[in-house]
Amino acid sequence: MSREAALILDRCDELAAISADPEHLVRVHLSPEHAAANALVATWMEEAGLSTWQDAAGNQCGRIEGREPGLPALLLGSHIDTVPDAGRFDGMLGVLLAIAVVSRLPRNELPFAVEVVAFSDEEGTRFGTALLGSRALAGTWDDEWWNLTDAHGITLAEAFVDFGLDPARLPGAFRRPEDLVGYLEAHIEQGPYLEDADRRLAVVTSIAGARRFALTMTGKAGHAGGTPYDRRRDALVGASELVVEIERLSKQQHVIGTVGKLEAFPGGVNVIPGRVEFSLDLRAEFDDDRDECLRLMFEAAHSIAARRGLEFHDHEIYRADAVVCDLDLRAGIEAGIRSTGDELPMAFWSRAGHDGMAVVAVTPIAMLFLRCKGGVSHHPDESVRQDDVAAALDAYEAAVLALAG
Amino acid sequence: MSREAALILDRCDELAAISADPEHLVRVHLSPEHAAANALVATWMEEAGLSTWQDAAGNQCGRIEGREPGLPALLLGSHIDTVPDAGRFDGMLGVLLAIAVVSRLPRNELPFAVEVVAFSDEEGTRFGTALLGSRALAGTWDDEWWNLTDAHGITLAEAFVDFGLDPARLPGAFRRPEDLVGYLEAHIEQGPYLEDADRRLAVVTSIAGARRFALTMTGKAGHAGGTPYDRRRDALVGASELVVEIERLSKQQHVIGTVGKLEAFPGGVNVIPGRVEFSLDLRAEFDDDRDECLRLMFEAAHSIAARRGLEFHDHEIYRADAVVCDLDLRAGIEAGIRSTGDELPMAFWSRAGHDGMAVVAVTPIAMLFLRCKGGVSHHPDESVRQDDVAAALDAYEAAVLALAG
Repeated sequence: MSREAALILDRCDELAAISADPEHLVRVHLSPEHAAANALVATWMEEAGLSTWQDAAGNQCGRIEGREPGLPALLLGSHIDTVPDAGRFDGMLGVLLAIAVVSRLPRNELPFAVEVVAFSDEEGTRFGTALLGSRALAGTWDDEWWNLTDAHGITLAEAFVDFGLDPARLPGAFRRPEDLVGYLEAHIEQGPYLEDADRRLAVVTSIAGARRFALTMTGKAGHAGGTPYDRRRDALVGASELVVEIERLSKQQHVIGTVGKLEAFPGGVNVIPGRVEFSLDLRAEFDDDRDECLRLMFEAAHSIAARRGLEFHDHEIYRADAVVCDLDLRAGIEAGIRSTGDELPMAFWSRAGHDGMAVVAVTPIAMLFLRCKGGVSHHPDESVRQDDVAAALDAYEAAVLALAG
Repeated sequence: MSREAALILDRCDELAAISADPEHLVRVHLSPEHAAANALVATWMEEAGLSTWQDAAGNQCGRIEGREPGLPALLLGSHIDTVPDAGRFDGMLGVLLAIAVVSRLPRNELPFAVEVVAFSDEEGTRFGTALLGSRALAGTWDDEWWNLTDAHGITLAEAFVDFGLDPARLPGAFRRPEDLVGYLEAHIEQGPYLEDADRRLAVVTSIAGARRFALTMTGKAGHAGGTPYDRRRDALVGASELVVEIERLSKQQHVIGTVGKLEAFPGGVNVIPGRVEFSLDLRAEFDDDRDECLRLMFEAAHSIAARRGLEFHDHEIYRADAVVCDLDLRAGIEAGIRSTGDELPMAFWSRAGHDGMAVVAVTPIAMLFLRCKGGVSHHPDESVRQDDVAAALDAYEAAVLALAG
């Protein structure tokens, strides 16, 4: 069904045009672009025959009934927020595949309702804390998050109001486990393993646990010329040593550690940096490995700081433990992939986090991965093949029908 | 004359209140704060009996005549712009000491006129290129600078117009060598050597040569989870290695290298940095040492980049070769220091750059250093003792009279 795959790719382009920056795709939680994307997705849902609503957390939802009204629902979904300077498939492709699947499904026949959810925040770009949309749906919201601020000092609570939502009504987004059958998500792999194996699709076995920290190295600013080396407390050289050490320890311990943000302050070309603010994202297949590596990294940080007369501070901004995908739902996805002619579907763990990590608190989850070019994601070069999208659509539909069977 | 020293310190406080940020002193070239500071300095110059004008480069000037009108002038001065989150003495103290010296000098008797200059830009905070005020006065202006832009994309030419200056009239700021006798500047040491030796004042032997670069390390952004280490082209880990190596080479080669600015892009907590923009400030007593160390640093940069699949790019934004202070003017300053009871004045080279590096193109220069607390500068903790300011004022006045004798 190449026509449907082409339509999905066209819609990815349409969504990518809804960006705060015309040159670089960025669409963050509760922004005007988020509202515009929700409205566009709602029109596509309605064209596909879903009844639609925006929930109390800004998630865009749609539903078709099963063989009788009000049955528990199988959720299909992904997210429509992005990182800065994003690609056009991470998240959005999963939402559009879900809508296309529902447009193919029989009405009033299945043993469950089917819903599509376009989650409002998975990346955490705006407020630093990820999965805000799916954690609202899963009822694992933390009221301390209302005080999170974005780069302009706007709190999450204020952003809700600006978007037309009422923080007091947030619990309305919560879905009870008894109203749900499970959650399926299709997503680009964001890694090179499918491409390396020359395969189109994979089933996900588990989603890596991740922890994220805001780090600060504090020394003392001073004149670049007048301060001899034995008196310097240069926060940037200390932070740089730690960045190199984080890479070394990650490789050694077989975890994935990334410093994505780093900025030196005050930032004068002739001023010794007195403070560095940076981030750490750490993930692994097993939580114990991740936490042991974290211990070694922070030990190194304090040792570097002590040697250089600096202070090291860490603040955890996000934590999600590893999630194992449900065996029954996995079997459905494997059946779906086999229906496309791939007799022995690839199966591996996801290094990236996904909405399912939050949704699993209320219902079992599983995921379908699509090959992406060069494994590239979180970058404008993200690319998928139209024939892979067509295969994913067939597999996804077959998976839902297998679960209904 | 403790009353005069107290007045100078009060005026440093008054100038420090003129800041773009009420919490952190920052006053940059051609800003509204620059205009306000010029106006305030002009009133103090007039109270001290100087006739005043703002020159075509935004430098605030004042003059008293010698034994006949129109004689060549001895320039006394420093700058009134600041780094971000600055102290209140770097530059400003030298301007206020100069005004206080002139208020003590005899009128219409000296064999030269005396002028005070408050230079508009020494730090280069706004446009990245330093000494713009003194280079206009010295006639070493480069017309390419008109296209320099600040953080908001405003060009230097536009900033001139916004400030009420006419770029076409810039040559009017140029001072001919035959109209000048020399240039003296008083400045806090910005280093620990006077304090360590328990001395108040020093004469400067030479000013270090400095070169400044805007550096870029470019790799490829990617998803923090999905990109295995053997496929990463992480610009931040490469830049961090270089920051550590710059420190190591600087110590080994006895030069002073500082990375004051560094920021990773796109800056997502879960995105591998694809680009890092950073700065390098390099200075040494001798230009050859500095340039040899720079060669080693760039060699290291290209080697790191090659090993990590990155690209390293450097762009020189500032270059000033080392300047030797004039022996006759130095003798005057030494006589001034001796007149305060210090029989054998300390003499050493300035690790920091100063306006004299530009002014030397049109007239000989020399400098008087004052002790500052802990050697701290370019930081709000900059501090000077009132009795040191009183001693500096006596020494500065005695130096001018010695040169007149």
